[in-house]
Formats: sequence, structure tokens, C-alpha cells
Amino acid sequence: MRGTFLRIASINLIFTAYFENTMRIDIITVLPELLKSPFEASILKRAIEANLVEVHFHNLRDFATGGYKAVDDTQFGGGAGMVMTIEPIDKCISKLQKERNYDEIIYMTPDGEQLNQSIANQTSLKENIIILCGHYKGVDQRVRDRFITREISIGDYVLSGGELGAAVLCDAVIRLIPGVLGNETSALTDSFQDNLLAPPIYTKPREYDGMKVPEVLFSGNFPKIEKWREEQAYKRTKERRPDLLED
Amino acid sequence: MRGTFLRIASINLIFTAYFENTMRIDIITVLPELLKSPFEASILKRAIEANLVEVHFHNLRDFATGGYKAVDDTQFGGGAGMVMTIEPIDKCISKLQKERNYDEIIYMTPDGEQLNQSIANQTSLKENIIILCGHYKGVDQRVRDRFITREISIGDYVLSGGELGAAVLCDAVIRLIPGVLGNETSALTDSFQDNLLAPPIYTKPREYDGMKVPEVLFSGNFPKIEKWREEQAYKRTKERRPDLLED
Repeated sequence: MRGTFLRIASINLIFTAYFENTMRIDIITVLPELLKSPFEASILKRAIEANLVEVHFHNLRDFATGGYKAVDDTQFGGGAGMVMTIEPIDKCISKLQKERNYDEIIYMTPDGEQLNQSIANQTSLKENIIILCGHYKGVDQRVRDRFITREISIGDYVLSGGELGAAVLCDAVIRLIPGVLGNETSALTDSFQDNLLAPPIYTKPREYDGMKVPEVLFSGNFPKIEKWREEQAYKRTKERRPDLLED
Repeated sequence: MRGTFLRIASINLIFTAYFENTMRIDIITVLPELLKSPFEASILKRAIEANLVEVHFHNLRDFATGGYKAVDDTQFGGGAGMVMTIEPIDKCISKLQKERNYDEIIYMTPDGEQLNQSIANQTSLKENIIILCGHYKGVDQRVRDRFITREISIGDYVLSGGELGAAVLCDAVIRLIPGVLGNETSALTDSFQDNLLAPPIYTKPREYDGMKVPEVLFSGNFPKIEKWREEQAYKRTKERRPDLLED
């Protein structure tokens, strides 16, 4: 089994294999119901069932005081959009921090550093993390100044909240935990693990409506197939994402 | 109401206001259950209920033939990971195309062009779009060659499937449809609409555990507040994302 690690592109993954603890992710949100189904299907569900990761949702409203259980208020200085207040977030994070140590308190925000495969690899090595989902116009700046250790954006676009960003981050991270994917080599031939996009892939039938699979894939000559795939991966990266080759 | 459009950064949004048709999005997936909750909460739910957008899920397995209803098979040429076969996808897309014209057939894939606010703006102008979610190792290359008109990635990281990517694209797009956000100016002061990150925001209380809100926000001098916000937005962009200022 260890032999499969020889080919891996990211050294981080080697260390992951030695961690025995279950990773714990606490997600703080005003919309836990939005996050439900992505964690109840497919790979995330299996990872949770296999105790490879624990994911806990915390409804920010449970930490709000006052009759309306408000978690947001209007902006100081005027302007459209509501701002999430500091107090319920403080209470929720403080409660969690009394229970255990956290390696990272992440805020999902479009002006954070951009998520990439390297950040996903690094994060998959953590033991306990908190993910705070912004909603409405975002959180009071003082939340970011006081509590947040890392701000992550999943891309240069604006979403209606940080919940989908949190789901994306969790998916990118959890699938890297050893044992989560059926075949561990599968993640290692993905796009980005070696700064190259993946080559074209084909499956049955050999011919479909006049479209044929490249002959080389039937040659049985594996070094030749590997070489073809590398050339195709390089060609595709050069055409589509020359910036990846510059790094 | 039209007056609010004067300040907008993206000319696309002006045209959006004149579209009267409900946008239709058809999502093709092997895991419709994964996509459920994001469309049943918050802004997406409200947009669907208000008939501003229709979202339909199509389970690829319903288009599979054979006893096992298989939608994937092993790779030609060997290698880890399953590949989605062309036939069920062909059947599903062909059925949809017989019913109406589609402006775009989008494949969610990490080697596609990177989603940004400009693509979200463009896509919010379309009438009918199909989004194909890859899963497993991806789709047979011939699907991409034959059917796909646009390949979109939500970022430089690998997810266990295209479903979360599709949800992210839908969220980014649907919130731009006029009438979806409560206050239309709200989306226009988001990060990226003018290539600047958003400035810091604050709400009550004025002081929290020793942390104060900047005094300028209480000045009542709106040109001065606007100037402060612009400076802060520029400063944050220069520190965090100087690449946005170069464009």
C-alpha cells in the first residue's frame, strides 16, 4: 500500500497518512439547512460514516440574544445590505474554544486568499477547524480582526452566502483524507496535483456515432500511453492555463 | 426604480432589467439528492418561488440502459477512477434540446475557464442553459467535443463532483437576476463588480470588548464616508489582490 505513495505530487499527503485522529470541522452559519444535502450524499457522507471526519453545524441564531434573535443589523455609515453582528459569533466561537483547541478559524469571503489545491492539501492535515460562513453583506470587521486566522475565497465571484463556499472547501479537503476515496491514487492524478490539467479520458464504447477513441489507448504499451497522457496534459495546460506552467 | 441603475458598474445588468422571461436551468447529474438543500433555502428558494428562475434536476441514471443502470465505466488505457459514458448524457441532452433551444450547455470541470463575476453577469442574461455535472474522474472526452459549448471551473482545486460547482454557478448567476435580491443596489456594491474588493463594514454595537468602529462612519458626512470606503477598498485590494488592479 505504501508503494502507491511514491508517485505522489504533494509531500503533504505523505504526512496525512500518519494522522490517526478524526478530523473535526465546526461550521458556523445562519443557514444550516442549506448545507444539509451536500454532507448527506456521496463522498462526504461516506467519510463521515467511516469516522474519517466529523462535521458539526452551529446555527448562529442559537447564540443570539434579544426577542428577535437577530444576528445582523444595518451598516454604520449607511449603505445597502445587512451586516452580521459580532456578539453571537463571539459566543459561538468562545464556546467551541473552551471545548478544544482549534488549528484554524476560517472565514469564507470573496476577498480572502483564493482556495487552491495546495491550501486544500494543507487544510486536510489539520485536526480541528472552524469555518465561519458570512451571509448578507458579510461580518462586522471586528470579527475578522479578533477571531479569524485565515480568510479563504473559493473564487472571484460573489455568492449569496459563505455556505456553498464552506461546502466546497470541505469537499476539496475531505476527499484528500486517506481512506476517503476508494482508490487513493485516484486523487493523485487529478488536475492541479502536479500543476498540470488532467489529460482527456475515454471509456466504452470504442466508437460512438462516428467518434473514435484514440488508438494509442488500445496499444497495451503502458509507457507509451503514459507518455501520450503527459503530452496531452501539457498541451491542454498550455492552451487553457499557461499561467499554471509559469509557477 | 430605474434610477438605481445609474450607479451600476456592469453594463450587462442594465440589459438584464429588460428581460421578461423566466430563466430556465437544467442540471444533469448522477447525484440530484446532493443538490437538494442549496436550492431549498435562502435566495435560491425565494427566486424559484417568485418564478424568476426555474431549476430542473435530471438524474442521469434515468437515461442509462442495461440491467445495472451504469452511467460510468473504466478508463481505456488503464488508470484509477471511473469515466462517465457518453450514451446517457447524449440521450438526456437530446431530449432537452427537442423541447427548447439552449443558449449554452455548460460542463463543470476544473480545467474549464475560471468562473468570475463577468461570466456570472453574462450567464444571468441567458434564457435556457444546461449544466452538466461531471462526477468520478470526469466525462468521456467525446461528450465535451460534441455537446459542450462552455466549460467552467469554479477554482483551481478538485472536488468530488461537479454538483457543488453547479450550485455555486447557479447561486452566483441567480442572485444577479433583477428582483432576486431585496435591494438591487446590494449586489452592485459587492466585491468584483468594479474590480475592487469591498471595504470593511461595521454594525452595532459602536464599541465591543474594547474594539471601536471608525469615527468617520458616524460623521453623517456621506461624501466623506464614501471617500473613506473607496480608499479602504483600494487599500485592501492593493494588499490582497494587486492582480485585480492591473486588469
